[in-house]
Parts: sequence; C-alpha cells; structure tokens
Amino acid sequence: MPEASANIGVVGLAVMGSNLARNLASREGNTVAIFNRSYEKTQGVLDAHPEAGFIPASTYEEFAASLQKPRTAIIMVKAGAGTDAVIQALTEVFEPGDIIVDGGNAYFPDTIRREKAVRETGINFVGAGISGGEEGALLGPSIMPGGSDESWVTLGPILKSIAAVAEGEPCVTHIGHDGAGHFVKMVHNGIEYADMQLIAEAYDLIRRGTGKSPAEIAEIFAEWNKGELESYLIEITAEVLRQVDASTGKPLVDVILDQAGAKGTGAWTVQTALSLGVPVSGIAEATFARSLSSHPEQRAVAVNLPGPDDAFAVTDHDAFIEDVRLALYASKIVAYSQGFDEIRAGAAEYGWNIDLGAVSKIWRGGCIIRAQFLNRIADAYAENADLPVLMTAPYFADAIAGSQASWRRVVVAAATAGIPAPAFSSSLSYYDGIRADRLPAALVQGQRDFFGAHTYKRIDKEGTFHTLWSGDRTEIEAEDTH
Amino acid sequence: MPEASANIGVVGLAVMGSNLARNLASREGNTVAIFNRSYEKTQGVLDAHPEAGFIPASTYEEFAASLQKPRTAIIMVKAGAGTDAVIQALTEVFEPGDIIVDGGNAYFPDTIRREKAVRETGINFVGAGISGGEEGALLGPSIMPGGSDESWVTLGPILKSIAAVAEGEPCVTHIGHDGAGHFVKMVHNGIEYADMQLIAEAYDLIRRGTGKSPAEIAEIFAEWNKGELESYLIEITAEVLRQVDASTGKPLVDVILDQAGAKGTGAWTVQTALSLGVPVSGIAEATFARSLSSHPEQRAVAVNLPGPDDAFAVTDHDAFIEDVRLALYASKIVAYSQGFDEIRAGAAEYGWNIDLGAVSKIWRGGCIIRAQFLNRIADAYAENADLPVLMTAPYFADAIAGSQASWRRVVVAAATAGIPAPAFSSSLSYYDGIRADRLPAALVQGQRDFFGAHTYKRIDKEGTFHTLWSGDRTEIEAEDTH
Repeated sequence: MPEASANIGVVGLAVMGSNLARNLASREGNTVAIFNRSYEKTQGVLDAHPEAGFIPASTYEEFAASLQKPRTAIIMVKAGAGTDAVIQALTEVFEPGDIIVDGGNAYFPDTIRREKAVRETGINFVGAGISGGEEGALLGPSIMPGGSDESWVTLGPILKSIAAVAEGEPCVTHIGHDGAGHFVKMVHNGIEYADMQLIAEAYDLIRRGTGKSPAEIAEIFAEWNKGELESYLIEITAEVLRQVDASTGKPLVDVILDQAGAKGTGAWTVQTALSLGVPVSGIAEATFARSLSSHPEQRAVAVNLPGPDDAFAVTDHDAFIEDVRLALYASKIVAYSQGFDEIRAGAAEYGWNIDLGAVSKIWRGGCIIRAQFLNRIADAYAENADLPVLMTAPYFADAIAGSQASWRRVVVAAATAGIPAPAFSSSLSYYDGIRADRLPAALVQGQRDFFGAHTYKRIDKEGTFHTLWSGDRTEIEAEDTH
Repeated sequence: MPEASANIGVVGLAVMGSNLARNLASREGNTVAIFNRSYEKTQGVLDAHPEAGFIPASTYEEFAASLQKPRTAIIMVKAGAGTDAVIQALTEVFEPGDIIVDGGNAYFPDTIRREKAVRETGINFVGAGISGGEEGALLGPSIMPGGSDESWVTLGPILKSIAAVAEGEPCVTHIGHDGAGHFVKMVHNGIEYADMQLIAEAYDLIRRGTGKSPAEIAEIFAEWNKGELESYLIEITAEVLRQVDASTGKPLVDVILDQAGAKGTGAWTVQTALSLGVPVSGIAEATFARSLSSHPEQRAVAVNLPGPDDAFAVTDHDAFIEDVRLALYASKIVAYSQGFDEIRAGAAEYGWNIDLGAVSKIWRGGCIIRAQFLNRIADAYAENADLPVLMTAPYFADAIAGSQASWRRVVVAAATAGIPAPAFSSSLSYYDGIRADRLPAALVQGQRDFFGAHTYKRIDKEGTFHTLWSGDRTEIEAEDTH
C-alpha cells in the first residue's frame, strides 16, 4: 500500500477527468491521486504527464490508502449508473469524515438521493456542477458545489485553487446543501440554451433581413462583443461565422446540418421549472427549437406550408441591426431573470440558502455563459438580495426601457416576414405578461369554474367562490378544495 | 354474502364516482355494485337514488361477492396513494381474469407501473382517462381506456353504454395497452390548456383593442360558435363573459381574481413532451401563463415596468375582430397538431398502437375540448394514418393559408401594443420554424462544437465532424459519441 501522500484524488480519467487532475496537480500545494477502472488509461495519463506527479492507484483500496484524511475524491465519470457504482466502491474503502465529490452532470434529484444515502455512512457526499468543458477543466472551470458545510472546509481551498478567476475572485462558492450545486448547474445550462437560441435568432434575422454573409455578420458580433453584450458566446459566434469550410469554400455554418442536438439539461431545467411553477418560457422555447430542428421527416412535409406573400425587405440595414442587438439584449435580460427565478424557487422548495449574487459572480469566468452582464446581476442582488424579479432591478428596467421599441420592432418584423423568432417573441410576451395590471387569467378561472367547479377568488373580498352555472347562476361560497 | 348480481362495480362515491355509478345504472343491462371506504356515503347514495337499484357493499369481500365474473370494478378516488390502497384491496378479493379499472386522473407512468404489478396476479388492470367533469360522468363522458385486449372484451360494451355519443358513435375506444389511456387523457388536458389560453388572449386583445364590454364580447364568441370555431369552450366563454356579478353589478370576469389555477396535467404534458423531444410550445406557453399569473408578489413589483409609448388604437373594429378570430383558428390548429404529435411520439416510445383518428373522434363529445373541428382531424387521419404533422393535411394547410395574414397582424398588434399573447406568438413561431427551409440550428451546432466538441453533421456528406477550434481549425472526422 502507498503512503497517504495525496490531498485530493480523481476517479475517471476520460478527457474531463484527466484535465481536471492536471489542473489540480499544477496548483501549489496539491498532490493528486488518480484512478481509473482500467489501469491502462491511468498508465497513459501518467506517461503523458510526468510533470504532474500523479500518484496512481490500481485498486480502490490503493487509491484510498494514497489519500490523506479526510480523504477527498472527485468522481469524473459519465452521469448515470456508473456514478452509483463508483460511489458504492468508494464508500467501501473510505471512512466517516471523508469526502466523495461527484463532478459529473448529475440530475439534482439523483444528487439529493445519493447525498442522503452516503450521509448514513458518515461520509460526506458533494454534488458539484463543473462548467467550462474540457478546456475549462484544464485551465479553470466555474464550479458549483453542494453538500455539507463540513465538506466545504476541506474542499473549498482545493476547488478555489483550480477554479477560473474573475476580477480577482475564484469562480466557486458553496452553493447550498445536498443537490443545490447540481441544481444551479442545471439552470446554468438552461440559460445557456436560451442565450444560444437568442443569438441564433439574431443571426438569422440579420442574414435574412439584410442578405449579409456569415463573414460580414461575424464582424457585427465581434463589434457587439465590445459593448454590453460582451460574452463568451457572442465571441465564439463571431469565430464560428467567420469559419470557412475547406472542402467547399463555403461558410462552415452553411454546410453544417441544421439539426441541433441536446444532452438533456435544457429539458431538465424546464421540467423542473414546471414542477416549481416558474415560467421559464425563453428556456422552453430554446429547448423546443432544438427538438423542432431535429425532426427532418416532419420538416420535409412542412416545408411546403405557405409563408407570407411579401418578401422580407429591410430598408435601413444599420438601424435594423441595432434593433436586433437591442432585442437580443432585452431578451437576454428576460432569460436570465427567468433562470434566477427558478433558482430562487428551487432554493425555497428544497430549503437551500442560495446567495443569488454569489451565483452570478462565479459564472463570470470559466463557464459557457460567462459575460460582463453578470456583474450587473451581482450588483442587483447586492442592492436587494430578495429581489422577486431580477429584471425589475433599476439597471435592467432602464436597459429594457431603452431597448423595448427596438425589441417590439424586431418581433414585428419576424412575425411579418415569416421568420421564426420563438425566443425573442416569447421573452417579449413574458415581459408584457408580468407587467400587466390585469391578465385574462380571470377568464380562464371563470371557464374552469364553469366546466369543473374549480372555484375562483374575488378581487374585492376574501374567500373562495363558485357560480352555480347549471343552476340559477347565483354565486355561493365554496370550500377551497379544488 | 350477496349473490353475484352486478355486472359492474364502482369504488369511491364522491361526486365523480356517484355520478358515474348513476350513469351506469341508468343504462339497459347494467346492475351496479357500489362501495365506499365509509359506509355512510354508500348509504347516502343509496337513499338519494333508489331508482338506480344499486347493490351496496360494506366490505371489499361483499363487493367482490356481488359481482359476476369476470368481476369488473371502476375505481373513482383521488389520484395518488389512495388509488394504490384500493388496488391492493381489490387484488386481495378479486381473481385472475377479473378487471380493475382506474378511472381517476393518474399520471401515466404510475398506470404503467400499476398495470405491470397487477398483471402478475392474473388480474387485468385498466387505466382509463375520463373527461367531462361531474356532468360528463353523469350524462356521458369521453372515455380513454388503456389496458389489455382481454379486458376490453368485457369492458368495451359497458363503457360504450355510458359514454357520450357524437354523430352516432360512442366516445370511447380502446386506446392501447397499459398507460396509453391515461397518456392520451393527459395530452387532452394539455390541449385544453392551450385552447383556453388562446381564447383568453383573443378576449384580451379584443377588449383592449376595441374597448368593448365583456357582454359585447360574449356576443362575438356566441357568433364565432356558429362557425368553424364551434366548440364547448367557445360556448362557455360566451356564458362566462355574459355573467353579471350580483353583488357589484359588474361583469363577473372583472371581479374574478386574475390568477389561474392548475392541477398539474398541463405541466405533465409539457414535461413528457420534453422527454420525448416533441415541441409543444403552445401548451407550454399556456401552462407558463397560468404560473406567471399566480405570482402576485412578482407582478406587484413588475407592474411598473414600462410599456410602449403609444396607446393601443384599433381603427377598424370589425376587421380586427375577424383577424383575431382567424388568429385563434390558426393557433388552435397548431396546438392540436402539437398535441397529436406528442401522442404519436408517445405511442412510438411506449409501443402503443394508437389510432389517432379514433382519438379525435372520441373527443367529439363528452369532453372539455369537444368541437366540430375534431371531425376535420379525423378526416385527416382517415386520409393518411401516418401523417407526420397534422397541420400539413390539406384542410388545415388551406385553413392556415387563409388565416395567416390575419394571424401575423394580430401577433404584430400584440407586440406593438404591449399586450401579452404568448400562445398566439409561440404558435406562429412554431409554424414558421417547422416550414423553414433552413434553420439557425446550424449555428447552434457550430457553437456546441466550438465550446464542447459536441461535433456536427454536414449537409453534403455522411459522417460526424469536429473542427479543431483551439488548434489549426481544420476539420476532422469524429466518433459520433457526443
């Protein structure tokens, strides 16, 4: 058995795991134990990175023996049954007080379940969302750990050593207990879906409205990246649009099949929001836009459905492009407002004490949605930690006030021209819905009372009421059971 | 022990259950056994309806003894743990070949689980969706039974005897095995959400655009009910809008609190669609519109967010109302097309052989979304049972072609005026998305490949590709593992 010389271990050495292990090893003070189900992979990592000083293990027993107490190991395997198997193996060789971290993309209810089960052994279990892809894992990801306060004492300094740094602060914070970290990572991904769809709609509208080439539109995004939209996603959009396909000489975006894939986190975000009663329509439309795109057999029969009679003609290109930029900005504010609303509701539902401002800060670096914009969100929550709707913060309300005429014109242009802009439109509908003094939901309540005796409340008195629709249509007080 | 004189039994005698029992007893050939956990309720039903000739039972043993073989019982209790308890009790007194029907609003995965468990005892388990509320249960509901073919032999004639009748045909068909019935009932409810939201948006736009009173708008809906929109929901909308509140003299719709409730089936429909990869954006927007309305603390802070500068002014009222009617019709076609798409996808996923035309036919009577319109859906599936997108059937494609200029004008008016029309807008975006020759999903694929090496496919050759974005930006063939 090796001596206990490592302060952190990594289980699972595919690209994400080996990059995270290398990141750990490169930081002052860390000695990293590594383990993989097949030793061949361990040997490969060892050979390729002698500078890392990895402590290899060929069995879980050896792996445990190589770790100082409290033993701390990060599991980096594909989310699912494999994770349960590794947790089981580690609980057999670890001791009370040790820490098992799941750094995969687990679904947060699984993390809650696992934390509860592992806790009974006295071992700490931490579900940690890690964002930033392969490069982030190597150079500095944004990390969203859940789990117990006890585990954070040991884990905090280690994770801070490897996280991305934004404005001098490491992009990691203790999100909350049990599944809080994976929950917040899930919503991060949902917001990412919305952000990408909004960018895609902006590109499509500019292209179809002005006839500009992808390379020309790349320059527009590069320009936007200098202003309030500055973000990693805008930056890489310019890079993708600039790319020329070597085999055809065409813009790469024109030879890529237009069927967007998904790995499920967008759907999880929306499914969870539905259970929580939180309207995340921008994320939902973005998720549906991907599924719509991925049914070629349906699109093949629908392609002949008629569009508007008139061709789309934008007269003032520059004004239109500026309108699209402001529509993108306003819609993006809505998407983030909805996402933070889901985190707020999730925290209330699951009893997590989540600092929304801290969440926005750790997303400023390392992750896919990193953006200047997140500083404004941090400011808003610093001003009012219990803000019920993010976009009502003065900065965002002003930003929308300055954008909304453009935003409305862009939605009008899309609807008139027959160009799908589901996320732009849906964000605007949400904005107009939540600010409405009075909603036709009152009619829906009347219908529900009519056909199902679901009862309604009144604006002018307490209580629950029902109209005897099939009787004499008088109103009675009802028990509030529906 | 009583003699086995009943051919059908009902367990659970709250309003839905007792109404269904009375409906059964009123039909030629049925003798109905009744049972309730507390005998007091059984006695009450017995006393109130001597004409029904009910056979009461005070224990499950007595209830079983009063039923002819194969014993057939319909459970009408609140969905959830209570259902499992009743199923357990019945399996203890029933025998192989007998039939247990769950007529509650169960979530279809529960029905799949229960069917599997009960089947092991040799007893048949049938999850049956029953739509039409209390009145439908008494006078004739639309019934959506799943379960085995064997159970349908006995159950079919009984259910046909009590179902609503539309154009001479009973509104019941064997939907498919195990959870198929509750699945279809769930989607029925999801479509109901979309239909109600679309009607609410139409009402809101007309009211805010023309200043007409609810009573005047009631007349518009009554008029619409004579045309292609003819349906129960349009009919009751007129009734609700016509209703005057006795205590204030105001229109009832103006004193009802504008916070719409929900019992979860809309959310289930969308959550299931997300798992199936089916875009049901209209149902999602309708569900989100209800949750948005039900957060008064958020609306209170958002009500000061600015709207457009100009007031909403419709010059030609009649033309605008006709535009709204056509927008409602086109959006409704999209909502049903999306709902049937979910049924199609669910059938494929769960191995159910569902006749979509038969589903549309049994919704023509008894249920909340009953409408003339469903005949057109039946026609479309009679023409082509494998129609990949319902709205591409010639009748619907023509209807949309004739409506779309109006539809676009209404979405434009809502966006310009700052009136939320999430379901109208989202339906239009879906329409323009599915008919698009090319979608910006290609850009999304490029972004995903850039930040996560998720790979992409090409329009011009087979295979899966990745651009070395952080390298020399050449393209490589990749394994299709992402």
